[in-house]
Amino acid sequence: MSKEKSNKLKVIPLGGLEQIGMNITAFEYGDSIIVVDCGLAFPTDDMLGVDLVIPDISYLLENEDRVRGLFITHGHEDHIGAIPYVLHEINIPIYATKLTMGLIEHKLQEHGLSSQVRKKVVKFGQSINIGEFRVEFVKTNHSISDAAAFAIYTPAGVIFHTGDFKVDYTPVFGDAIDLQRIGEIGKKGVLALMCDSTNAERPGFTASERTVGRQFDNIFAENNSTRIIIATFASNVDRVQQIINSAHKYSRKVVVEGRSMVNIINTASELGYLNVPDNTLISVDELKNYPDEQTVIITTGSQGESMAALSRMANGTHRKIAIKPNDTIIFSSHPIPGNEKAVGNIMNALYKKGANVVFQDVHVSGHACQEEIKLIYTLLQPKYAVPVHGEYKHLKAQESIARQLGYDSEHIFILSSGDILEFDEQTGEAAVNGNVHTGAIMVDGLGVGDVGNIVLKDRQKLSEDGIIVVVMTLESGSGRILAGPDIVSRGFVYVRDSEDLMDSARAVLNDTVEALEENGVTDWGKIKNEVKNALSDFVWHETERRPMIMPILMEV
Amino acid sequence: MSKEKSNKLKVIPLGGLEQIGMNITAFEYGDSIIVVDCGLAFPTDDMLGVDLVIPDISYLLENEDRVRGLFITHGHEDHIGAIPYVLHEINIPIYATKLTMGLIEHKLQEHGLSSQVRKKVVKFGQSINIGEFRVEFVKTNHSISDAAAFAIYTPAGVIFHTGDFKVDYTPVFGDAIDLQRIGEIGKKGVLALMCDSTNAERPGFTASERTVGRQFDNIFAENNSTRIIIATFASNVDRVQQIINSAHKYSRKVVVEGRSMVNIINTASELGYLNVPDNTLISVDELKNYPDEQTVIITTGSQGESMAALSRMANGTHRKIAIKPNDTIIFSSHPIPGNEKAVGNIMNALYKKGANVVFQDVHVSGHACQEEIKLIYTLLQPKYAVPVHGEYKHLKAQESIARQLGYDSEHIFILSSGDILEFDEQTGEAAVNGNVHTGAIMVDGLGVGDVGNIVLKDRQKLSEDGIIVVVMTLESGSGRILAGPDIVSRGFVYVRDSEDLMDSARAVLNDTVEALEENGVTDWGKIKNEVKNALSDFVWHETERRPMIMPILMEV
Repeated sequence: MSKEKSNKLKVIPLGGLEQIGMNITAFEYGDSIIVVDCGLAFPTDDMLGVDLVIPDISYLLENEDRVRGLFITHGHEDHIGAIPYVLHEINIPIYATKLTMGLIEHKLQEHGLSSQVRKKVVKFGQSINIGEFRVEFVKTNHSISDAAAFAIYTPAGVIFHTGDFKVDYTPVFGDAIDLQRIGEIGKKGVLALMCDSTNAERPGFTASERTVGRQFDNIFAENNSTRIIIATFASNVDRVQQIINSAHKYSRKVVVEGRSMVNIINTASELGYLNVPDNTLISVDELKNYPDEQTVIITTGSQGESMAALSRMANGTHRKIAIKPNDTIIFSSHPIPGNEKAVGNIMNALYKKGANVVFQDVHVSGHACQEEIKLIYTLLQPKYAVPVHGEYKHLKAQESIARQLGYDSEHIFILSSGDILEFDEQTGEAAVNGNVHTGAIMVDGLGVGDVGNIVLKDRQKLSEDGIIVVVMTLESGSGRILAGPDIVSRGFVYVRDSEDLMDSARAVLNDTVEALEENGVTDWGKIKNEVKNALSDFVWHETERRPMIMPILMEV
Repeated sequence: MSKEKSNKLKVIPLGGLEQIGMNITAFEYGDSIIVVDCGLAFPTDDMLGVDLVIPDISYLLENEDRVRGLFITHGHEDHIGAIPYVLHEINIPIYATKLTMGLIEHKLQEHGLSSQVRKKVVKFGQSINIGEFRVEFVKTNHSISDAAAFAIYTPAGVIFHTGDFKVDYTPVFGDAIDLQRIGEIGKKGVLALMCDSTNAERPGFTASERTVGRQFDNIFAENNSTRIIIATFASNVDRVQQIINSAHKYSRKVVVEGRSMVNIINTASELGYLNVPDNTLISVDELKNYPDEQTVIITTGSQGESMAALSRMANGTHRKIAIKPNDTIIFSSHPIPGNEKAVGNIMNALYKKGANVVFQDVHVSGHACQEEIKLIYTLLQPKYAVPVHGEYKHLKAQESIARQLGYDSEHIFILSSGDILEFDEQTGEAAVNGNVHTGAIMVDGLGVGDVGNIVLKDRQKLSEDGIIVVVMTLESGSGRILAGPDIVSRGFVYVRDSEDLMDSARAVLNDTVEALEENGVTDWGKIKNEVKNALSDFVWHETERRPMIMPILMEV
């Protein structure tokens, strides 16, 4: 990797796991590298037992002396979640808007890193000069307050990165997206647009957050004799604000349930992003002092997460809140792909307890639909389109929008993780030239990166058919069998139902080791192999299952 | 259980797993029991390694002498899949329409049961008299041909069971649902309606299957220079017919891929439910003899099933078909809840290979929406509403429709598995009185019922954090440790990365067993417990993981 000054601007996505939202991108020019976002991902179904996934930042570590700063678009986990892990490896200053920084600060404190990290809160309209770059923070709208787009000024031209965004002309808090400034930036010339693709498959416009507030008012008016429980994303502060507004309007007290909900509401209130009228919030222990129709519970768990507060209420394992017949329960959310079944199961459980479940027309997306994407392209008129954010199919959907707007394949780049997209300062031409190492690091408990493919394959095999352990004790020197073979299984078959099977398996093993002894085989590797094969064949023949078979030999 | 003649009609759902579609219901009057449908269910996420789930039919076995016949509404797996397992236990005659029986026959042959089972093919309009019952087969529409509703005439009144159905005024094959006959039956008086709830949350009407055919024609016309691959449900014979029609119209040859697709197309063709023009079908090996734009591949895998043909094409592991850039791939299906992520992953993989993926407006549901459900209620005007088919939330949605139509809570019954719904012959009153034993039996490989909760819990634990096996050899009599403790792990942590951890674990174990020896402990149960606790505490402290710990002692 040459560290000389070059006349190329490089854009390199570093999120090693494509399609599951670990957002982190390097921008590089000469001796300067800046990084935009630093997100984690939640494990896919095949990552058994894994808690979360973070990006492999080897590339940044190799170029540590050139990395100047970390710019964060907004405070969602897939944009900030890996910060504590990454900052542990490379200490660079963080730039973000106020609420975003508040949420990052909370994370850094949890990891005991706060004091050693440089943080700068940036206002919309403000620019940060850093190395060869200038980064301007531009106001956007999203399902969390204080979301920013970045206009990244470089010697090779301007890159506009939208972050996650939507166009909300009537936002609940703060201003609408700064379309004037975006138009102005576009007028001066933009080299490339990196635009959110999440909703690029959906026609039309995403509705304003404010429409949900009106719907809450309707539901509160209609259900004026029951308790109301509303599940939503903890980070959607504006949604929470609207629930509080409706509660206040209809004279209900509000209980906040779920750790992440409490954390974010505290941070947002302290920083002035949430306005809670006096005497509105009560603790869960005070619930019993108010009649049902004077209370609202705001809770986590709208995605069917098994450990979240709503799930515990639905399953009757919540220590303080029991679902009552006639409770009105609102899912102010839409299931993220993969969570549909879990959300459905919770709804079923709530219905079984007699609750009334409301899930239609009480949520709007935080991402731009097709017409909004066209609006941004038309305001910026970038030379190149670089769709970002979303699964590959979403990037392809934005590509198709760009084509409708007249972009040809030479002006659209769909990048894979690690691709180096180079813009030539002289010619203005763009091309993918080479790639850097990226990867996904799995975090399981306290272990960062100690679970890899071998461990996952073993967990997969164990999960399907269980394990059979075969133990034998051999005499040192002679290799004569002193004890065993004994077999023990877990997750294979219920033992009391299968004594015949296990007895037969023992007989097969006895035959096998007798044959080995007769043939004078004393090589442990060979003994283990023969035992494994004989048992595996027997088990498959009898059950058509393939449990993991683990022979263990001891010597005395 | 009294076997005397009673004046009660009993309806008992026997599908032990609620909400995942194992349809089987007993109807009982005096000394006669008939059974409607006999389906299997696919395992839920927590049933690790389980292949399929069948109902526990203990109740039928206890009353074997009274069970007169099995009536099948249509040929989907959740209605016929458990037949071979159940018929193995209780040999009763099967009544079904022609295509349904063809699909059942295929199953019975696979299980070597065909010759010993009595089967009667029934025509629409025909009635079967059996014991105290008369069962009339009424034509309906569904996403598989030859679907029937049953009018079940009993001394206590008529029960109308819709099976899975929709209203299709312009079906692709055969007649529209027999609304005239349904009206006539209703006019004479119906005691209870058991109506499909699957789409009860959706307003309006389900579109006709024929609309999909028109859409296929459009897509074939637009994509006349590329190969077309269409994934759909194997059992949707009318969908396959429409693909073949479009292929024929646009002079394309058709390849059928996927074992279940081939099976069903063969059965449907033999029985006259599928009309394939001569020289239309070619084998997959003949594909290479035709240019891409003259071929269509119909394939299984529309639900993202990992072993299905489409999945293998997308992942590049199909032996005979490789996805090419510009292939047009149509998902003529909608993901069943829980499959969204898997379907999305396959789409992403197809896009990455350069294919064009079409998934909007190329599928219609096979189930009745709200207006169709209202139509059936209005034609039949039953005294009681008993919503069936679907998750609990769908049953509740039908309840809400019934309420709109004027039914009060005393005339609507949402049954749980095993509930005995009794209709009194004299008074016509209905009530749930008691319940019978039901359950879900898991099938894993050749094992039927040998995987239970203990095995599943072990698999769950193994899948999350793996296993650590601790082995020791003790001296017979003295209990002195001759070898070990040795430890071996699988699925816990990659060993090469964790030598320090494993060495420390061994040291902990050595300390533990030394202490045990010093204290003269020789009780195996106590030794195992101490070893387990010491290692478990150490591992949790070091890693915050809880692998299964399995101590094994041997004696020489």
